[in-house]
Amino acid sequence: MFIRNAWYVAAWADEIADKPLARRICNEPVVLFRDADGHAGALLDMCCHRGAPLHLGQVTERGLVCGYHGLTFDRTGACVHIPGQDRIPERARVRAFPLVEQDAFLWIWMGDPAKADPATIVSYPWHNDTERWPHKHTMYPIKSSAMLMVDNLMDLTHLGYVHVSTIGGNPTIHVEAKMDTVRTPLGLKFTRWMLNSAPPPTYVRAVGFEGRIDRAQMFEFIAPGSILQLSAADEAGAYKDGLPEDSKLQFRLFHGLTPETDTTCFYFWSTANGFRPGDPATTEALFKEIAAAFNEDRTVVEAQQARLSELGESTLVDITTDAARMHMRRTVDRLLAEEAQSLAAE
Amino acid sequence: MFIRNAWYVAAWADEIADKPLARRICNEPVVLFRDADGHAGALLDMCCHRGAPLHLGQVTERGLVCGYHGLTFDRTGACVHIPGQDRIPERARVRAFPLVEQDAFLWIWMGDPAKADPATIVSYPWHNDTERWPHKHTMYPIKSSAMLMVDNLMDLTHLGYVHVSTIGGNPTIHVEAKMDTVRTPLGLKFTRWMLNSAPPPTYVRAVGFEGRIDRAQMFEFIAPGSILQLSAADEAGAYKDGLPEDSKLQFRLFHGLTPETDTTCFYFWSTANGFRPGDPATTEALFKEIAAAFNEDRTVVEAQQARLSELGESTLVDITTDAARMHMRRTVDRLLAEEAQSLAAE
Amino acid sequence: MFIRNAWYVAAWADEIADKPLARRICNEPVVLFRDADGHAGALLDMCCHRGAPLHLGQVTERGLVCGYHGLTFDRTGACVHIPGQDRIPERARVRAFPLVEQDAFLWIWMGDPAKADPATIVSYPWHNDTERWPHKHTMYPIKSSAMLMVDNLMDLTHLGYVHVSTIGGNPTIHVEAKMDTVRTPLGLKFTRWMLNSAPPPTYVRAVGFEGRIDRAQMFEFIAPGSILQLSAADEAGAYKDGLPEDSKLQFRLFHGLTPETDTTCFYFWSTANGFRPGDPATTEALFKEIAAAFNEDRTVVEAQQARLSELGESTLVDITTDAARMHMRRTVDRLLAEEAQSLAAE
Repeated sequence: MFIRNAWYVAAWADEIADKPLARRICNEPVVLFRDADGHAGALLDMCCHRGAPLHLGQVTERGLVCGYHGLTFDRTGACVHIPGQDRIPERARVRAFPLVEQDAFLWIWMGDPAKADPATIVSYPWHNDTERWPHKHTMYPIKSSAMLMVDNLMDLTHLGYVHVSTIGGNPTIHVEAKMDTVRTPLGLKFTRWMLNSAPPPTYVRAVGFEGRIDRAQMFEFIAPGSILQLSAADEAGAYKDGLPEDSKLQFRLFHGLTPETDTTCFYFWSTANGFRPGDPATTEALFKEIAAAFNEDRTVVEAQQARLSELGESTLVDITTDAARMHMRRTVDRLLAEEAQSLAAE
Repeated sequence: MFIRNAWYVAAWADEIADKPLARRICNEPVVLFRDADGHAGALLDMCCHRGAPLHLGQVTERGLVCGYHGLTFDRTGACVHIPGQDRIPERARVRAFPLVEQDAFLWIWMGDPAKADPATIVSYPWHNDTERWPHKHTMYPIKSSAMLMVDNLMDLTHLGYVHVSTIGGNPTIHVEAKMDTVRTPLGLKFTRWMLNSAPPPTYVRAVGFEGRIDRAQMFEFIAPGSILQLSAADEAGAYKDGLPEDSKLQFRLFHGLTPETDTTCFYFWSTANGFRPGDPATTEALFKEIAAAFNEDRTVVEAQQARLSELGESTLVDITTDAARMHMRRTVDRLLAEEAQSLAAE
Repeated sequence: MFIRNAWYVAAWADEIADKPLARRICNEPVVLFRDADGHAGALLDMCCHRGAPLHLGQVTERGLVCGYHGLTFDRTGACVHIPGQDRIPERARVRAFPLVEQDAFLWIWMGDPAKADPATIVSYPWHNDTERWPHKHTMYPIKSSAMLMVDNLMDLTHLGYVHVSTIGGNPTIHVEAKMDTVRTPLGLKFTRWMLNSAPPPTYVRAVGFEGRIDRAQMFEFIAPGSILQLSAADEAGAYKDGLPEDSKLQFRLFHGLTPETDTTCFYFWSTANGFRPGDPATTEALFKEIAAAFNEDRTVVEAQQARLSELGESTLVDITTDAARMHMRRTVDRLLAEEAQSLAAE
């Protein structure tokens, strides 16, 4: 069960060049492509003639050509050419999905196209500010539901267990972090303060902290699948009046979780280097550090999915540190209920 | 759903020598073997004692010996030996399938044995005429229903899209080919005429055509799964009175599609060289050229099967070039209906 | 369907050291571990917090720590630590399974813990007698039900077919072996006498028999999954008054079959060298010989499982040599029925 009337990251914009790309989203086979004008489009990945997947075809001036018998479609899904006949029947079309290119993403809408308002797409301007926030991005296919990956990011106490050898550091620091939480219409924002704490190894390596530090992590969850993160650290005492404009160490992460099926998802993520923007090696090193940590998440979350798929969640016990995660789940459940109600009313 | 009262190619005759061979046909596990006299037999691939597959056993003078506890069966499925006891119970037998060796094939009958008439087996004498039509053959396992592969061969406009880089040539030539179609009791025959057309690269390589050519392809579909093909080409003008006895370029293809399961099949095919029969290198080159093209078909048809398995055929749209394919399907549907009716009447 | 109120081999004791081990038993995911005191425990392999498998965690002084958010459990399944909170809720526990370490095995009880009586565990003292019966052991995962593997060991006529090239020898010897059978409360014992017979190649290699031999195999099946075997051989005539205390050639095999799922199992087995106990090379050679033979069993039994999973057992025919196997099956069926009845009465 997915929220369908929502924008999801379908792909990184630079994933789609001259070749069509197949990607299953919310359990529907989608083909992403760019037409001759460079506009990206998203269609059901199945020709309306004999059902061949359109991603096996190629793009010409006219549009996306099916690789089996040559029917051609434009970005709206209309058939614009049938080899061997002049008349194109009314029914010869494939379903098109609203698709918007913005902030280095292709955002797709899997629900009712009439409700697709591009103004509601999550804004992430830092992807465009390549001077102050140079970034690097990738996508991890994950064998868990998108929700389990969002769960993961809503309870950061896992850092002390899952990421001991990477970005974690001492478990106690994470468990005892002070949390400021603000609820929002589509989720929540929280800041985790770890003031006057020992810096984790990667922080020392990055900027050479010598003593204790003030550390903050700001997370914003926007349903159904976006999480915007800012991590910052400076000498102990620097954050006594809150987070300043700039910190000695600061980086941003974007996390986009898009359902592939009920038990698999795509994890689109980027790292933006805000502390040594002029140094490409730092941008690269930050990305690699995070990539290793996210592989650790992948291992534990995929194993968790296997257990929950088999045994369900009914016996599970919530604990104190689940507060943000539980609020996130309630938001998603409310949106799902609203969508079901609106469908029933139609 | 398969037509069962029909002969299917179970194997190439030369696939079965001293070792038994396991092959699933119409979703039943079959073991093919030759007894000590060299006669090929087909049994259900499951010992009647403890269910071990018989293909793990070996052939002795007495018959096919189960590799687990030594029960032995002849070609009729009768148990002829049980280690440790003299009396062989009535029930100790395995199901046998009618099997006929003819024209380099082993033809199997998966339906009611009482209806199995060898006289109705498709005749393909060219396999025996090794002087004038030397041939080469193989089998491709395909992850699609047998029907999707027959579809593929009933609409040759795919040559211009699927086989651009091999046997295809210009799509327009194929789309505009003139078709002569004749319906038959078990299918149809059609000839595609591409007169005064540019030769495809492989034709030029084969016989050195320098100018435009007359080209013809004759296809005969015989339900449920045989397609006999003759391809011929000569200098432009050569076919103005129809296809002559011999052409400068001519070769035959046999296509045998045998269901393995509902969504997988075996593609038995051969190429026979009728234009340079004395030159083994030509026979080999023809086979290789076709082998590459059929791998292209495999890719697209397997992808098509995946989509149709998931989303069904109900939204598909027939187009003009589907005429032969649709007639083929109607023939198969009629035979399926007749078989269902005859079963109901029993 | 498994007998649950019974002890099964969960692991070799030496499989569990400092790292937890995941193993599915009777279709339940189990984690096996040793706590800081060296006591082995078995828990459901799923944390009660968010469902992560506990085998991804690690053992500390306090117990088994979940690798996701740090909840910690002792061998009874009680949660003894939750990071970030002092109170541990009543429901925070995972299911524990009775586990007993004995004779180099870890024995697990998957049924009602109240009925788990360690006194009923199969005794196998030879594993502890490393001077007179030095042994070597391993575990084979098998893609068949545990029952099909027990079947295999209850009808030794398969030796002449499955193990022709290893421990088998002439089929006739096995088929004609004289059987003494005694029924027991939980199964049966039988001795197969092959007096005055030709020695199989491995026996000749082992102790240099020059003429004919007397050969005996004693098997004891104890439901649900243990088989104790003693194989012995000596010069022809040596067994005319029954099996003596010691033979020129003698070795013991333990076979423990533990269900993983309905169609897969674990085959724990050991070989104990009782004829040249002071020679480690003999202990090793015996193990290797048997290992090769058991791989032959694996091949045929896994293939048998595939056929029975698809086509069922209803058409199978019992033969004379099935007597011991059939008695074993009746014993197991009776125990299953008793267990179902006792569950219904609760």
